[in-house]
Amino acid sequence: MTRIVSIEARHYRIPLPVVMSDSTHGEISHSGLIVARIRDADGAEGVGYTYTVNDIGSRAIHALIEYDLAPPLIGEDARNIDRLWERMWWHVHFCGRGGATAFAIAAIDIALWDLEGRRRGEPLWRMLGGHRRKVPAYAGGIDLYFTLDALREQTRGFLARGFGAIKMKVGRDRLAEDVERVAAVRELVGPDFPLMADANMRWQAHEAIRAARALAPFSLVWLEEPVIPDDVDGLARVAVEGGVPIATGENLHSVHEFEQTIARGRVSFSEPDAATLGGITPWMQVARLAEARNLPVTSHGIHDIHVHLLGAVPNGSWLEFHGFGLERFLAEPLRLEDGCAIAPNRPGHGVEFDFDALDAHRVRT
Amino acid sequence: MTRIVSIEARHYRIPLPVVMSDSTHGEISHSGLIVARIRDADGAEGVGYTYTVNDIGSRAIHALIEYDLAPPLIGEDARNIDRLWERMWWHVHFCGRGGATAFAIAAIDIALWDLEGRRRGEPLWRMLGGHRRKVPAYAGGIDLYFTLDALREQTRGFLARGFGAIKMKVGRDRLAEDVERVAAVRELVGPDFPLMADANMRWQAHEAIRAARALAPFSLVWLEEPVIPDDVDGLARVAVEGGVPIATGENLHSVHEFEQTIARGRVSFSEPDAATLGGITPWMQVARLAEARNLPVTSHGIHDIHVHLLGAVPNGSWLEFHGFGLERFLAEPLRLEDGCAIAPNRPGHGVEFDFDALDAHRVRT
Repeated sequence: MTRIVSIEARHYRIPLPVVMSDSTHGEISHSGLIVARIRDADGAEGVGYTYTVNDIGSRAIHALIEYDLAPPLIGEDARNIDRLWERMWWHVHFCGRGGATAFAIAAIDIALWDLEGRRRGEPLWRMLGGHRRKVPAYAGGIDLYFTLDALREQTRGFLARGFGAIKMKVGRDRLAEDVERVAAVRELVGPDFPLMADANMRWQAHEAIRAARALAPFSLVWLEEPVIPDDVDGLARVAVEGGVPIATGENLHSVHEFEQTIARGRVSFSEPDAATLGGITPWMQVARLAEARNLPVTSHGIHDIHVHLLGAVPNGSWLEFHGFGLERFLAEPLRLEDGCAIAPNRPGHGVEFDFDALDAHRVRT
Repeated sequence: MTRIVSIEARHYRIPLPVVMSDSTHGEISHSGLIVARIRDADGAEGVGYTYTVNDIGSRAIHALIEYDLAPPLIGEDARNIDRLWERMWWHVHFCGRGGATAFAIAAIDIALWDLEGRRRGEPLWRMLGGHRRKVPAYAGGIDLYFTLDALREQTRGFLARGFGAIKMKVGRDRLAEDVERVAAVRELVGPDFPLMADANMRWQAHEAIRAARALAPFSLVWLEEPVIPDDVDGLARVAVEGGVPIATGENLHSVHEFEQTIARGRVSFSEPDAATLGGITPWMQVARLAEARNLPVTSHGIHDIHVHLLGAVPNGSWLEFHGFGLERFLAEPLRLEDGCAIAPNRPGHGVEFDFDALDAHRVRT
């Protein structure tokens, strides 16, 4: 029997190994981790999760799962994932359409896909399309405030670990500093090495256009989040007038937002994050939207899930490889081979949390 | 001293006097009410609130206020409302940009405006612009599933109470039923009486265009939410091809969404809801956006607050008069005189909750 009999949510507050900082979030010292565990009448279990920056909003997301989303799903057939997703979306619609509800829906949706994969005995990357098991990964530096020397040292470290692509932060107070830093990294990695830059929404459109033009000589694969996600018209201007391919998506929380950002915002690289977009169901929809426009799809966050999704679709681009310290609590952290992440062949997503180790960080309400 | 010393949040689950239903929310038996009380170093207090449909999401909103939004505001100068609003928006941005966070920010923002009004000894309607104290109100029927007789009876009741405008639901399974119902009400109220119709997102654009054209002979003031709020292109088509002025906004949760909906969606009547848009600060911004385009602004929900805001601005249209049962817990419920609601001249918004009576409905976590 595939009827859902229980959905349990847990909230963990996890200190990062190193405090990070970027242009919008200030100092980041913790991640919030919210895990949803779904059991069906056969006793099978699926595990899903989402995360927050500095643990902000975690209690809200936990409450949305426990009090609002879970109860109406009890007794439903766990196999009808798309239908259940639609029900969740509409159940919380009045205070939803994105934001915290998209995170809460994500944890449940990922758990449903995991359950389905385990039921079929198939890994997600194959179940969802099966294009490739090895996905090229890039290292994402949270390095806006690094000295030039520290930036170079980090770059050498990434190269030594075998990464075939690197992303760095831009958006310093003076554009000349950004140019100097990108030039320094480009010099170190050589002219053909895939290099990306991420502005974390720092600019308004006219500033972003100026920055894109100044950075154009360094052949960036993409310039990420030049403006706030709400400024779709501005994004289109940056894409067209700046002359550098644009990536965005980590702050978009619905398929509708991606549709507009792709169609009107002229974005080349969509970066859906299954954990913040409402799960695997809408992630796949965004990938297909991009494919229909002859565009790639990439990812943000939770690389253990995204390695499956980017492996599943024909238009998968680079995987952001970024554990946010979660690897300490996983039975088998994602492996990197020749710059590629390897999707596990375990059924479902194959992510096994060490719940005993996590318990020290559990937040009880 | 105007430094904030405490922000307290409370959550109430309030049974409605009568169970309601519409085309998207099914049966509505409860409202969630989340109240934020802010005290400054002088001992002055401001009260703000937001609400939910069927209490869904209330615990999340309560948690966002208590754990995420309130702590960083302690010690801040309560007078710098716009600055504090911006801080809140960015503090919860990663799981925000609308949804539940907009509701939580709203409760605090409304409390800050109330505090400021009390400090100045001014009612909000004057403090924010002072255009008029009497605001024409319309009665909103939640009547999609009423029989024709019940619909007529409700209409007669609204007229007897002195309402100068009425809104009814549309979006039945067959368009012919909508036409029949609108015709029946139009016949009863006469040809010049302001009549609106609300579809609660029931249709896709092509259906909405057909419906608008079928309803055009009945001279509706507006047709509300013909499509989902995410479908801005569809909305523009309905506005242009349907031939009936369009209203929308209760499901928009940021100024950016309103900007796009006004500019691209060709909406005539913006309907911001201060309780679900992030408070009075963004509500005023939407009103000004509409004014700049020579458009009116109307409201949704919490009429005790909106009577002030529609009275404050030059382009205020009809006030939705709809207490959702909250009037039982107010010292002085909003008065109606000759079809107009009268903004109270008490300092701030002048809404005084009977917290003792509310206590029976308090949800403690």
